[in-house]
Amino acid sequence: MTQNIYDDPTFLAKFRELTRTVGAAPNGVPDLAQLETLLPPLRGAAVLDLGCGEGWFSRWAAAHGAGRVHGVDGAASMLARARADSQAYSDIITYAQGDLNRPAEALAALPGGGQPQFDLAFSSLALHYLTDLPGLFGAVHGALKPGAAFVFSVEHPMRTASRTAGAATDRGTGRPFWPVADYADEGARVTDWLLEGVVKQHYTLQTYLGGVLDAGFEVTLFREWAQRDTGGRFEGERWSVPSGVMPAFLMVGTRKRREGACACRM
Amino acid sequence: MTQNIYDDPTFLAKFRELTRTVGAAPNGVPDLAQLETLLPPLRGAAVLDLGCGEGWFSRWAAAHGAGRVHGVDGAASMLARARADSQAYSDIITYAQGDLNRPAEALAALPGGGQPQFDLAFSSLALHYLTDLPGLFGAVHGALKPGAAFVFSVEHPMRTASRTAGAATDRGTGRPFWPVADYADEGARVTDWLLEGVVKQHYTLQTYLGGVLDAGFEVTLFREWAQRDTGGRFEGERWSVPSGVMPAFLMVGTRKRREGACACRM
Repeated sequence: MTQNIYDDPTFLAKFRELTRTVGAAPNGVPDLAQLETLLPPLRGAAVLDLGCGEGWFSRWAAAHGAGRVHGVDGAASMLARARADSQAYSDIITYAQGDLNRPAEALAALPGGGQPQFDLAFSSLALHYLTDLPGLFGAVHGALKPGAAFVFSVEHPMRTASRTAGAATDRGTGRPFWPVADYADEGARVTDWLLEGVVKQHYTLQTYLGGVLDAGFEVTLFREWAQRDTGGRFEGERWSVPSGVMPAFLMVGTRKRREGACACRM
Repeated sequence: MTQNIYDDPTFLAKFRELTRTVGAAPNGVPDLAQLETLLPPLRGAAVLDLGCGEGWFSRWAAAHGAGRVHGVDGAASMLARARADSQAYSDIITYAQGDLNRPAEALAALPGGGQPQFDLAFSSLALHYLTDLPGLFGAVHGALKPGAAFVFSVEHPMRTASRTAGAATDRGTGRPFWPVADYADEGARVTDWLLEGVVKQHYTLQTYLGGVLDAGFEVTLFREWAQRDTGGRFEGERWSVPSGVMPAFLMVGTRKRREGACACRM
């Protein structure tokens, strides 16, 4: 099992203080209003929640009519909390520990053995921790029914590129900017987020979009999102305000191509 | 007719000194090697070249077997040169002056009256001058046959965002970076490129990709490209080297969705 920062007690304690964790969806997840516009109808749907953490989206999907939700995460501590918090949906939601850096293995362990069975695969801010994106995209493709949706958000590649990241101020104009550097050099980026030394992976836009296209998905929606700081609370907004400097998250809506003699296949 | 910097004699004289202009395709156009991977087969194809300038792509397409090429540009001076330089392909290539900021009008004036007739619409580094992207995308859609390709390159939105653009050096690390600022604020950016006060339009990735999806195209390929300076010459490369800071151009390959009861339509 890949070492998982989310099992670190100090990290987890701080993570649980974040607005998105404390508040629960929808109020604590400012990006949900935008993510929701990328989702297919959930009524009766079979949903796969990749990197489910403590289960906020699994519960939200169940509350919005999903027929079945299966959450996968690598962090045992978070799954324990997810299970404890999801008892009201025990007939709908199941959780399993799985290493998304070994996606074929993790999804083969699904109920149904990784056969096409889901109407939606969803992942919120998890893929930028993974080292095998093509493997993950392929495994997700295998677990989805033809025509099913795969919707994910990640930290925006503009945000993850630099090794010395952080907004800065232009000395000449006094206006904020974000330095992009080393964009072409994909791989590990060490950041201080809640704890020192948290490792995320930087991928380019070309890698994210090319990866889903190569895996057999059609890109249907594309959003760049940033949070707005409104007096201590965060509010869902398309853009980063007040700075407007750059988007924080990338959101991609895709659909698994249907097999057969469809004229619009590539 | 929109004021066109490419009709300014001083600008045009400097533009004609650029490697990409002097060298002619493929040697003078370092991005062509990458662009070529986004194109459909050209043999016998009817090609629309939007913002054709002095016609380097129109001639390249004709030399690669296109059956018919029609170039449109707003700058009369460049079209004069395009016509003079394309006499070897006079049975294949036609040129017309048209204001791409009035796309419906410009494309209705096409031979065939803007009916679906082209197999490929192509645009190299022109769309970031336009103020009506949705109108352009809609007019291109109308001029293409079902299933036909629309391939374009633009300056990368990361590059066009800041009003005080230009690579800089991190004082701490001594490494280069590119400042991204005002990304969310689309619209005119005044830059000094060959002449002072050249106006380009900044659009976000969401606007480019959402625009083609909304117009009825399917995104099939996505590339981020930067040039490599190799001892005075430019060489086609995926990434900006030596800096590797960020990509210079965005390249998008799309296909017009087919009408009818195709199962994979959205």
